[in-house]
Amino acid sequence: MEKIPTGGTSPISSPLGRIQFQPSTSFRILTVLILCTIGVLCQYLSWKTSSIPREVPTFSHLVEHCADTKPIPASEFHLRQQALAEKLHALGGAAYIAEPGANALYFANLSLAQWWLSERPFLLIITPILQEQESHNGERVAITPVVRSQVLILTPQFEYTRAKLLHIPTSSNVTFIPWAESESPYKAVVSALKKRHRGQMPKIFVDEGSRFFIVDGIEQISKDFIVENSPSEIQALRESKSSAELALLRCANEVTLMALREVRRHLYFGIRESDAKALILQALMSAGLKNVDALVLFGENAALPHGSGTDRQLGEDDFALFDMMGSLHGYYSDLTRIPSKHLEVWYTVHAAQSAAKHAAHRGVKASEVDSAAREVIGSVGAGQYFTHRLGHGIGIQVHESPYLRGGNEALLAIGNVFSNEPGIYIEHQVGVRLEDCFFIDEQGKPVLLTAGVGGQAASPWNP
Amino acid sequence: MEKIPTGGTSPISSPLGRIQFQPSTSFRILTVLILCTIGVLCQYLSWKTSSIPREVPTFSHLVEHCADTKPIPASEFHLRQQALAEKLHALGGAAYIAEPGANALYFANLSLAQWWLSERPFLLIITPILQEQESHNGERVAITPVVRSQVLILTPQFEYTRAKLLHIPTSSNVTFIPWAESESPYKAVVSALKKRHRGQMPKIFVDEGSRFFIVDGIEQISKDFIVENSPSEIQALRESKSSAELALLRCANEVTLMALREVRRHLYFGIRESDAKALILQALMSAGLKNVDALVLFGENAALPHGSGTDRQLGEDDFALFDMMGSLHGYYSDLTRIPSKHLEVWYTVHAAQSAAKHAAHRGVKASEVDSAAREVIGSVGAGQYFTHRLGHGIGIQVHESPYLRGGNEALLAIGNVFSNEPGIYIEHQVGVRLEDCFFIDEQGKPVLLTAGVGGQAASPWNP
Repeated sequence: MEKIPTGGTSPISSPLGRIQFQPSTSFRILTVLILCTIGVLCQYLSWKTSSIPREVPTFSHLVEHCADTKPIPASEFHLRQQALAEKLHALGGAAYIAEPGANALYFANLSLAQWWLSERPFLLIITPILQEQESHNGERVAITPVVRSQVLILTPQFEYTRAKLLHIPTSSNVTFIPWAESESPYKAVVSALKKRHRGQMPKIFVDEGSRFFIVDGIEQISKDFIVENSPSEIQALRESKSSAELALLRCANEVTLMALREVRRHLYFGIRESDAKALILQALMSAGLKNVDALVLFGENAALPHGSGTDRQLGEDDFALFDMMGSLHGYYSDLTRIPSKHLEVWYTVHAAQSAAKHAAHRGVKASEVDSAAREVIGSVGAGQYFTHRLGHGIGIQVHESPYLRGGNEALLAIGNVFSNEPGIYIEHQVGVRLEDCFFIDEQGKPVLLTAGVGGQAASPWNP
Repeated sequence: MEKIPTGGTSPISSPLGRIQFQPSTSFRILTVLILCTIGVLCQYLSWKTSSIPREVPTFSHLVEHCADTKPIPASEFHLRQQALAEKLHALGGAAYIAEPGANALYFANLSLAQWWLSERPFLLIITPILQEQESHNGERVAITPVVRSQVLILTPQFEYTRAKLLHIPTSSNVTFIPWAESESPYKAVVSALKKRHRGQMPKIFVDEGSRFFIVDGIEQISKDFIVENSPSEIQALRESKSSAELALLRCANEVTLMALREVRRHLYFGIRESDAKALILQALMSAGLKNVDALVLFGENAALPHGSGTDRQLGEDDFALFDMMGSLHGYYSDLTRIPSKHLEVWYTVHAAQSAAKHAAHRGVKASEVDSAAREVIGSVGAGQYFTHRLGHGIGIQVHESPYLRGGNEALLAIGNVFSNEPGIYIEHQVGVRLEDCFFIDEQGKPVLLTAGVGGQAASPWNP
């Protein structure tokens, strides 16, 4: 799901003419309704002509599709913490610090659902510690230092009991640092770190999503440490998805597309955007997804939806935009489909999406993937109407780094997952966006997360 | 509403004995039910003995109490921006920058409800600009420089149309700074500020609630500016409430107490915490409050509620803790009442609350007000069970600075508004908290926000 774009500040001077989209009159009668089954049409007519209450569709069979998926196991959290500790050690980092949120969820199962942010600092702290490890080679005993991770939690003292109830998967004990209301929480953090890193001047990396007063508070106290924004090397750990993560992302995206196909059978002329949205949300929830949301926009509303404020009814000349999301064990789907009478627009966006997918390989710059889509749309003179970046990373957040946008020199890596969602938005006329997520596989090639259920839309009539 | 305290790590060794609370058996039959009207008792008995559906209480008359209150007018936003500009000018500040949130709401009506935070920077920027003002004194014309505020909005370019739809009350035009997806938003901010402050090295003050990557992004670009956490002088602007703000806070707190008194009439033995909570939420919403929430905890659950996970039924020996909040035109109430069989505990907490109120005058240190309550509770040997600070500032956030806690050397000022909520929490036994909000009036004296409806609880039976 991309933030809904508007037409920007560009003047709209005969845009359809300029970009050579000639609406063919033979397509004017193509609508989603015609694509639905005759059965649904009859059902619709019967609602209009009788007082029989409308049959409520059920989508409960969708739940089977991802029924066998499992949440991320504790062992994988241990690996994440270990990888972070090794990275910290290599970067001269004494600690990684994060408030509850996406990164703390990734490293220690500590999301905002577990602990809401208040004015009282509550922090996840992960430090690398050096341990000596004996290895035996015949009669010789070699002692080598190894890096291990240690997890600390800074908690308000009066919430210590509650903090201990959190489920934080670690391979060793969690160390709690309680701070009293009349004392400085930052002093407590820095004292704990000093004990571990005497006589050095290492770095404290703070998660970029942390609030400024937390960073500033630590910085004011920590003369023995350098406080820095968490570097890209640490960000890269989460950007590269494991096979367990990919399995969840794949099933979430597949079942989202399946839900749309089901809902499409229940659309009819005159249905309101809000009713269609209720249907898709019901289907996504029936599929077992959490945190579901959807944008459902008919006709020109898709070009400037935030400003419309209307609850449009599906008309004969309208297309329908569905931009849907939901999470499976914490991992998100994000998918957009649009059956449209503006066929040329649809096929242009589709071609742009294909071009981007073909460009997306390991080692390619993120900006180049964005360009691949942009060139297709630009080639028909519609460049100014593709007003947003091509896509975003996705995983435990719907939007996360890396981003597929102009100016991003980062190279695509194995395990990265992206949305691929080019669009054309002409205010007051039409808005088309197609979105599928893909990942970079072990061979460095792009694989659609919806491949298991058909992948990219085949045509406006086959979402 | 205070974050629910727990007993901390202190051992609980005969606490009732040590703090000299002798539960008098004559009080054992005192319960909230006895305090309710006979009518309600009869009603309860009839539910138990018949299948007649329970009458649903209505609280709709509560809406009248605050029906005449008005939201903060545009003119007051102008004054806030002007005060900020003057403060910035005095502090050598080129700009104040905030993400949507409480401070952006205060200065420019820009809350998270208007614009949710995403990975794309969207910033409120307020700068002081110097204008020349002519004044005529007879035939002489004097030209003096005056400081005016200017409001700028950094917005993603593709959301420019949506940004323009925001209602930002300013006395002059808002300047929008759109940034394209492939460009740096931070460069756009700094360029805009450079134009205004050539050749100087002034400060950029960033709101303490902003996310680290925003601050870091600006800091990396702005070699001509010093980036700092917003200082206490700016914080103090919002800490001092206007008469319009006090009117909203007062009515919100009054109607919250009125709602509790109504709900109390509908309590009965056996009612579950969740059902009582539903009642109070219904009453608060009926009163016209938004963002309502409540903690409802019976008996020992009040001492360790987060850990209980139970939905306790009100027993004969139980007290009931109600900690309630709701907002009126964006301004919050926060109030706690508890009718209790642990009368000595109740009266101790009540005395602590009174002592704190008497100590709270203009010019007194925040820490001293906290101490006043703490001494009362400490004098009966229960100091270790008062596990949290005395209170917090309140306004457009339920918790905001200044805080009444040990270690806070800030002086109370006219227009400050605080919660006053001492408590005693003995795990597995009892938890008592009493909370009322007060403000410092023009004479520098504390005035309860609930004074209009009786003020502090008179006794456990008169909340």
